[in-house]
Amino acid sequence: MNILDKPQNLVPRSVTCGPLPGSKKIYHHPRGRADIAVPFREIALDPSANEPPVRVYDPSGLYTQDDVAIDLSQGLPPIRAPWLVARQGLETYQGRAVRSEDNGGATLGRLVPPCPANRLPRRGVGDSSVTQYEFARAGIITEEMIFAAARENLGREQMLEDAEARLTDGESFGAAIPSVVTPEFVRDEIARGRAIIPANINHPELEPMIIGRNFLVKVNANIGNSAVTSSVAEEVEKMVWAIRWGADTVMDLSTGRNIHNIRDWIMRNSPVPIGTVPIYQALEKVDGDPVKLTWEIFRDTLIEQAEQGVDYFTIHAGVRLAYVPLTAKRTTGIVSRGGSIMARWCLAHHKESFLYERFDEICGIMRAYDVSFSLGDGLRPGSIADANDRAQFAELETLGELTRIAWAKGCQVMIEGPGHVPMHKIKINMEKQLAECGEAPFYTLGPLTTDIAPGYDHITSGIGAAMIGWFGCAMLCYVTPKEHLGLPDRDDVKVGVITYRIAAHAGDLAKGHPAAQSRDDAVSRARFDFRWQDQFNLGLDPDTARLFHDETLPKEAHKTAHFCSMCGPQFCSMKITQDLREEVLALAERDKGMAEKSAEFLEKGGRLYV
Amino acid sequence: MNILDKPQNLVPRSVTCGPLPGSKKIYHHPRGRADIAVPFREIALDPSANEPPVRVYDPSGLYTQDDVAIDLSQGLPPIRAPWLVARQGLETYQGRAVRSEDNGGATLGRLVPPCPANRLPRRGVGDSSVTQYEFARAGIITEEMIFAAARENLGREQMLEDAEARLTDGESFGAAIPSVVTPEFVRDEIARGRAIIPANINHPELEPMIIGRNFLVKVNANIGNSAVTSSVAEEVEKMVWAIRWGADTVMDLSTGRNIHNIRDWIMRNSPVPIGTVPIYQALEKVDGDPVKLTWEIFRDTLIEQAEQGVDYFTIHAGVRLAYVPLTAKRTTGIVSRGGSIMARWCLAHHKESFLYERFDEICGIMRAYDVSFSLGDGLRPGSIADANDRAQFAELETLGELTRIAWAKGCQVMIEGPGHVPMHKIKINMEKQLAECGEAPFYTLGPLTTDIAPGYDHITSGIGAAMIGWFGCAMLCYVTPKEHLGLPDRDDVKVGVITYRIAAHAGDLAKGHPAAQSRDDAVSRARFDFRWQDQFNLGLDPDTARLFHDETLPKEAHKTAHFCSMCGPQFCSMKITQDLREEVLALAERDKGMAEKSAEFLEKGGRLYV
Repeated sequence: MNILDKPQNLVPRSVTCGPLPGSKKIYHHPRGRADIAVPFREIALDPSANEPPVRVYDPSGLYTQDDVAIDLSQGLPPIRAPWLVARQGLETYQGRAVRSEDNGGATLGRLVPPCPANRLPRRGVGDSSVTQYEFARAGIITEEMIFAAARENLGREQMLEDAEARLTDGESFGAAIPSVVTPEFVRDEIARGRAIIPANINHPELEPMIIGRNFLVKVNANIGNSAVTSSVAEEVEKMVWAIRWGADTVMDLSTGRNIHNIRDWIMRNSPVPIGTVPIYQALEKVDGDPVKLTWEIFRDTLIEQAEQGVDYFTIHAGVRLAYVPLTAKRTTGIVSRGGSIMARWCLAHHKESFLYERFDEICGIMRAYDVSFSLGDGLRPGSIADANDRAQFAELETLGELTRIAWAKGCQVMIEGPGHVPMHKIKINMEKQLAECGEAPFYTLGPLTTDIAPGYDHITSGIGAAMIGWFGCAMLCYVTPKEHLGLPDRDDVKVGVITYRIAAHAGDLAKGHPAAQSRDDAVSRARFDFRWQDQFNLGLDPDTARLFHDETLPKEAHKTAHFCSMCGPQFCSMKITQDLREEVLALAERDKGMAEKSAEFLEKGGRLYV
Repeated sequence: MNILDKPQNLVPRSVTCGPLPGSKKIYHHPRGRADIAVPFREIALDPSANEPPVRVYDPSGLYTQDDVAIDLSQGLPPIRAPWLVARQGLETYQGRAVRSEDNGGATLGRLVPPCPANRLPRRGVGDSSVTQYEFARAGIITEEMIFAAARENLGREQMLEDAEARLTDGESFGAAIPSVVTPEFVRDEIARGRAIIPANINHPELEPMIIGRNFLVKVNANIGNSAVTSSVAEEVEKMVWAIRWGADTVMDLSTGRNIHNIRDWIMRNSPVPIGTVPIYQALEKVDGDPVKLTWEIFRDTLIEQAEQGVDYFTIHAGVRLAYVPLTAKRTTGIVSRGGSIMARWCLAHHKESFLYERFDEICGIMRAYDVSFSLGDGLRPGSIADANDRAQFAELETLGELTRIAWAKGCQVMIEGPGHVPMHKIKINMEKQLAECGEAPFYTLGPLTTDIAPGYDHITSGIGAAMIGWFGCAMLCYVTPKEHLGLPDRDDVKVGVITYRIAAHAGDLAKGHPAAQSRDDAVSRARFDFRWQDQFNLGLDPDTARLFHDETLPKEAHKTAHFCSMCGPQFCSMKITQDLREEVLALAERDKGMAEKSAEFLEKGGRLYV
C-alpha cells in the first residue's frame, strides 16, 4: 500500500539514528577556527590492541551522533548561516510562490506538506563573488574550503610522517595528489576548475565536501520515488540511510506527485550535497509530454529548485539535435532519461536543444545560487555494444565546450560519464574527459563492465567504478542490485553504497592517497590478532560482518577465539603463523642476518634442482 | 544440528536438479566424432525476438538436464571410460585399502559410507603417454582435447563471420587468442605448457575443460566441511549447486572426519575437475600437529586421493625454509593454510620442506594418474600491507623452477596466486608469473583490492579478479561474502560463483574473446525490446532477476510492460527512445546523409559558442 494513501503518514516522523557499532562522532576545529567544526567518526579498538582509535571520513551528519534528538520538522542546524551572512553580494528575498503543479497537482489528503523548517531564499546580486569558483579565482579561501580541506586530511594539521613514502606507492596517472590537503590547495584546485564544492547558498545545513581528481574518490547515491512506488517518509529515510553507509552526495530523482515538497524535507535534513535533474520536474509540469517542454517552464523549475537549496543540477545540454541521428543504429538507443526527453523534444520541433541555446542564461541562474553544474551525459551508452561510440564522444566534446562557458560565467562544473563500458575501453573515457573538459571533475555511473548479470549490476559496475576511480574519476554514482529491474529499496541502497565505498577506496589505495591504507592496515592487524569485534567495527558494514560470523559461532567467547568456522581451530593459518611468529622473530634475531643470508642465498641462485 | 549426528542422513540422497529457466541442455558432436557429446545450454528467446536460441558454456553436468534421474549412489556415467580403455600403458589394479585414519577415525553411526559407485583404480605404467601434457608433446590429440576445444567454440565448427572484427576490439596483453579454437590449437597450447586439462584417469565422469590464458577465463569454487560445521549431504549439494551457477572446477577443502568418503561421493558425482590440498588430509592423519608430518604420510595421501580421481592437487612446494623469516615482519604473516603448516614443519625441524626436496617423487605420482599440479602460493599476502613483498615473489620464483621440473617429468602445471593486492600492484603479479613460470596458467584467489569490507569480500576481490582475468589469469578462485568470517553456506556459494562469472566474463570481453560479447548483446536487445522474460533468462541468475523485478511489478502482464518500477511508464528512457526510433531512422534515411552531415558539422567545429 502506498503511504500517500494514508494522510496521517504524509509527514516523515523518524529516521535511522545512532552511532555505528564501536564508533563515536568527534569534531575537529581547523587551526584558529573555533567556529568551524568538522565531523569525523572514530572507531574505538579493543584495549589489547594498544592502538589509538581509527579516524574515518564521515558524511553521515548528526544522525550518527548519540546525544542528539532529531526533529525532521526543524531540519538540521544551519551551520553555514554565519558564513553566508558575512558575505557581501547576497540578498534574501521573497522567493517564488509554490504552485500546485510543483507537486504534480497533489490535493488535500494526498499533498505532502512542506517542511516547516523553510526559510527565505538567498541569491547573489551584482558582481560580488557568489560561487566557490569565483572566490577561488579571486584568491579568497572560504569557510567551505577550510572545512573540505580538514575532511580530506582526516583532521590532521600536520601529515603522518610516512605520508610521502605512502604516496610514492600508488599510480595516479598524472594526478597531483598532495601529501597534505591545505585550504590553499583546495582553493587552487577549485580555481583551476579541477574540483568543486557543491554548496548552494540556500543549503546552510550542508557539511561542505570537495569533488575532484586530487581528493578522495566520492560516492553518490540516487534516491527518489517514481510514479509506481515509494513515499516521502521512505525517501527521507533512504537519504539518511545512504549517508549512514557512506554516500557523499545524494541525488533526488523523484518523479510523480509531491516532488517539490518531498525535496523540501530532503533538503532541510541533508548534511550532504543534494543533486537533481530539473528536467524531470519540468516534464511533470507539462503532463509528461516532452514535446510540450519550454524554456520558460524549465527556467522556472531551475529557480524553484535553486531556492530550495539543491547543490547541483544535472543539465543535459550536450544532447544536440545533430547528435540524435548518431544513435539510430545503437543497440539500446538513448538510455538517459534526460537525454531521451531532450532528443524527443529536438526531433519533434526539429530545433536545437533549448538547454544548449540558453546555456548562458542557465549559467546566470546557477551562478546566482552557486548551484554546480553536473553536465549530463544524455547520450551515454546503455550497453557494451554502444560503448565509446560517436554519439557518446560527440556529446562529451560539447560538454567540454560548455564547461569553458560555465567557468567563464563563474560556475562550478563537473561532467557526467557512462554507463556501460567493457574494461578495455574505460581508460580512454577518462583520458578523453580530462582532455576535452579541462580536467573538470568526472562523475560516472559505474561503468558496468558486462550486461549479462541483471540483479548483480552493483558488482558488474563496481568493477568499472573501482577502475575509473583509480584512473582519475572524482565521483562514482552508485548502481544498486535492482538496476534495470525495479526501484531500489532500503536494503538495495545499502548494498549499493557499500559496494561503491569499496570501489572508491580501492581507487584511493591504487592512486596512492596518503594514509588511505591506514584503515586497511588496522583491519588486517585486528584480523591477525583475532580481535573479531575490532575487525567488524573497522569494516564498512559492522552489522553484516558480525552477523556472518555469528551464524556459525554466536557465543560471546567466540569473539576472541583464535579461529572461525571457515577453517576451524586446527586449520587456522593465522593461528598457526601467530604461534609461529615469536619463533620466527627470535630466529631472525638470534641468527642475525638470517633474512639477509636467505636473500643472499636467493641471489646466488639458491636452487636445489638446476 | 550437525547432520552427522543423524545416522539416517549419512548418505546424501538428493541434490538440486532441473534446467535453468528458459534453458535446455543440448549436445554437440565434433565433426566425425559421434562418440563425443559436448554439452551446452541453450536459452530460448521469445518468438517476438525473431532470434535463434543463445548458446552458452555449461559446466553443470547432467543435473540440469530435464529428462535424467539422478542417483548419487550410482554416480555419473563414466563418459571417458571408452577413451581410457583404448589407451596403452594404463593398468587397473587393486588400489590402496581405505584405513580408518583416512576418515579421521570416524566410527559406526558417524562414518559416512563410501559411494557405491567405486571402481578399481587405473594408473600409468612404463613409458607410454599418460598425461595430457605427454600426449600433446607427442603430437597426439586426445578426446579430452577435442572435447575442450568444442566447448570453447560453443560448438561452432566454423567461426562467426565477424569473429576477426570482434577480436581486434579487445586488448589481450600479448595473449594469442585464436578466432577458432581447434583441437590442434588445444594440443599445441598444452604442449607449450600454456594450458592444462585437469583430468585424472580415475575421474571418468569428467566433462573435460581447459585452463589457459588463450581460453575463456575459468572460475573455481571452494567447498568442504570444516571441523566446526557442515556435512556430506551439504557438500555434495554445494558442488552441484556451484556448477549449476557456473563453477568450472570445484576444490574440496574438507577437513575433519569422513574426509575420504565425502570425497568419494563428490568425485563420483562431479562432471567438473575436482581439486584438493592433500596436506590437509595428511595433517588430519597426524592429529593436526604439523610437526608430525612425514613424507611417507604425505606420499600415501597423494596416492589415496589420486586413486579416487582428484584432478589437481595444490602442493605448497615453494614454501622453503629460507623464505620463512621473510614473513617475520609481515602484517598478517602466512595466511595460506598449507603455507603455514609447511612453515611450521620447516621451522620445527629446521629442515628444508619435504615437498621441495621430494618434488621429483611427487611428480612421479602425479604423472601416473595425470593429476595436474596447482603449485600453491603458501606465502601469498594476506593483506594489502603485505602485497608483492619479497616473501611472495621469492616463492613465485621457486614455483617457476618447479614448473620446469614438473614439465620435464611429463606433468601438467598451473600456478596459484594472491590473495590481497591493491589495483596498482595487480598487473606486476601477472607479468612476473608469466615470466617466471614460462606462461603456465595462473590461478589466483581474487585478489582482494582492499581489506576494509569484511562481509563483502566477494566484491573487493571480484574487482581484482576481473582485472587479473583481463591481464591473462586463466582461472579465478572465487571468494564468498563469508570470507574471513565463517564457512560459506549454499547462498554464499551461489553469490560467490555469480560474482566470479561476472569477473571472468568481464575479462573475456576485455581480452576480445571472439563472440564473448554475443551474450551481452542478446541481453541488451532483450532489454531494449522490453522482453523481460528473455532478459531474466539470459542473465547469470534468472531467478534473482525475476524476483527483483516482481517485487514491485508481480503481474504476468508486467512481463511485457514497456517500463519497470525504477522509472515508471512516463520516465522510461528505453520507451521514449523506442518510440523515437522509427522517427530517427526515417529521418536519417529521408534526409540521406544526415548522419554524415552532422559528422561534417562537427568537423567544422559545429559550435554555437566560440
